[in-house]
Amino acid sequence: MAEISSTPPLTRRSVADAHALIRPHIHATPVVTSRALSELASTPRSRNNNDGDGAARPRLRLWFKCENLQRVGAFKVRGAFHALERLKREPGWAEGGGRERGVVTHSSESPLTPPTGNHAQALALAARENNIPAHIVMPTVSMPAKIAATKGYGARVYLSGSTSAEREALAAQVMTDTGGARLIPPYDHPDIILGQGTVGLELQEQAAQLMATTDPYGTASSYSSSSSSSSSPLASPPRLDAIMTPCGGGGMLSGADDAKRGFERGQRVTSVSSATIADGLRTPLGEWPWRIIYERRLVSGMYSVTDDDIRAALRLVWERMKLVVEPSAVVGLAVALYNEDFRAMVEREAGERGWDLGLVLSGGNIGLDAVPGMLL
Amino acid sequence: MAEISSTPPLTRRSVADAHALIRPHIHATPVVTSRALSELASTPRSRNNNDGDGAARPRLRLWFKCENLQRVGAFKVRGAFHALERLKREPGWAEGGGRERGVVTHSSESPLTPPTGNHAQALALAARENNIPAHIVMPTVSMPAKIAATKGYGARVYLSGSTSAEREALAAQVMTDTGGARLIPPYDHPDIILGQGTVGLELQEQAAQLMATTDPYGTASSYSSSSSSSSSPLASPPRLDAIMTPCGGGGMLSGADDAKRGFERGQRVTSVSSATIADGLRTPLGEWPWRIIYERRLVSGMYSVTDDDIRAALRLVWERMKLVVEPSAVVGLAVALYNEDFRAMVEREAGERGWDLGLVLSGGNIGLDAVPGMLL
Repeated sequence: MAEISSTPPLTRRSVADAHALIRPHIHATPVVTSRALSELASTPRSRNNNDGDGAARPRLRLWFKCENLQRVGAFKVRGAFHALERLKREPGWAEGGGRERGVVTHSSESPLTPPTGNHAQALALAARENNIPAHIVMPTVSMPAKIAATKGYGARVYLSGSTSAEREALAAQVMTDTGGARLIPPYDHPDIILGQGTVGLELQEQAAQLMATTDPYGTASSYSSSSSSSSSPLASPPRLDAIMTPCGGGGMLSGADDAKRGFERGQRVTSVSSATIADGLRTPLGEWPWRIIYERRLVSGMYSVTDDDIRAALRLVWERMKLVVEPSAVVGLAVALYNEDFRAMVEREAGERGWDLGLVLSGGNIGLDAVPGMLL
Repeated sequence: MAEISSTPPLTRRSVADAHALIRPHIHATPVVTSRALSELASTPRSRNNNDGDGAARPRLRLWFKCENLQRVGAFKVRGAFHALERLKREPGWAEGGGRERGVVTHSSESPLTPPTGNHAQALALAARENNIPAHIVMPTVSMPAKIAATKGYGARVYLSGSTSAEREALAAQVMTDTGGARLIPPYDHPDIILGQGTVGLELQEQAAQLMATTDPYGTASSYSSSSSSSSSPLASPPRLDAIMTPCGGGGMLSGADDAKRGFERGQRVTSVSSATIADGLRTPLGEWPWRIIYERRLVSGMYSVTDDDIRAALRLVWERMKLVVEPSAVVGLAVALYNEDFRAMVEREAGERGWDLGLVLSGGNIGLDAVPGMLL
């Protein structure tokens, strides 16, 4: 990782700079819409067989950013490529032999749960394309397919015990043995955050462009005829009203339920014992993401859903949107469909005009054999 | 269906006109690229453990048109909406009470095989959005989910025996009982062909735009430095070299293996006994598609693949591209990856520069429970 002292400030401008650096290396993933799911999200939920009496009545038009279609099948390549681009620009790194020593990470993103491996594979790919050796520490209990995929990207894989302490010890040993391979953490670093932030930038731009051209939901007309509480002048072009993302370590959102609990308490939650099927989110919120999410109040709200909500949303995305996504990827949609707090808030804030809501489908790495059993 | 005498000529201009008519009603589905699959397609296949000796060495850059993300999960909505737009414009149809009598189709696309139902669902949706009654004849043996989905789009479903004669008799009865509901066939009519043709138009435009902007494969540079046999002047903007689509009834390509056999014999094959897993393609080529494909020679070649090739391509699209697709949708990719005749032709024709090849992922309607068993 580039030294913290040399990292850019966490501003929108820095995210745009990050985008310029990684653009040649990533897919400009599509933004897709769904009338069927937008209609479902705009229908009051029936409660106690009561035909929706008392249920929130938000109007939602959904815009999905398909990071499941990203390279390596997840948004994580954005942070990994950005970390390497920044490292290459760190004064003295290449001259001091940094390129030969390479980079190191450990595959599990949580001390408490099974590894998800998206960051490890992303880093392995980014390192290979930069001709830099990647050293990846993975627990011996990792699925053989994950180990094979990581090796397939040209990384050197080191098998460790399954505890966090064992993995960290082995990663430290690798750093010593290589004479200083640089650690690239999965989320808790400004360079990773700036890289992941590019997904939001693209989503905003792409949705605005679609509204201005094909306008699949008729947003443009509802926008110009808006008499709602929106403070935007009528002349301004239509754009997304909000973006909702999954939050694990918080690298993209800048955590799962721990982030929500911390957000409400005003205190970062540092341990997570959740066993959600959204395995990519079983991580405590990082320190850097915490500063952005809580201290700088750049996030307006945190919402959580049940595993059953996630399963139901997962089935909808597979069956109706025809997209292969992992459970973590659909938590935003699950909130939009099933979280009454969120839905009542949208009804209250947006009224008749409703919201154009951007949702990030964060990744699609899931074993196909597991799918039928996972769906409600 | 609008009367044949009133249909526009089958020209590119007519396809553009069709596009203007249906654009408000369909999704502008994304075109996505895959470096991993393009690399695989550009790698010689190893034969007899011989490390690819003697195998074709084409260079292929793949551009996928995601009609699995289309409304109803298949390109078929294009033809259905176009058929209705044309019908609405037929002199005397509305005035004569055509709107009240509605439209009729039968769900199975082949007399010989199980129904796929994409056209029936597409027509049901298009009719509902036009406030026109849809009468759909389906065999009693249809999966309950297909019947429910068709009813869910507001169509009236009539259950018939499973033979073609029984379905046609019931459809004729419906036409009589309704005083003249108009039959909308799944593929063998110019209005359907013009509607389905819009997928090719969009694919060409979107790929050219991507080449001019993000240029994911570096096509632009290879194009301008081309010294190959390409006859295009160097100044012309980069574009696709070819498009390959699945061919069942031929509505989109304008068959399965029957189309290929007929193409080679110069004679339309009118019966198909294939039991391919690509159930959407188990149909003889229609008369109108035949005229385009064979008599007007607007198709340069026909290729076929084995079911194992289809299964392997299906797994790649699900696992690597993260897209839910049905078996029929991947036959083009299977040809690009596994058909040595095609691959040798591309090597011969395109040389070092290679081909930018557009592939239509035609649909995504597949029961999720069937998936693990279907993959190689």
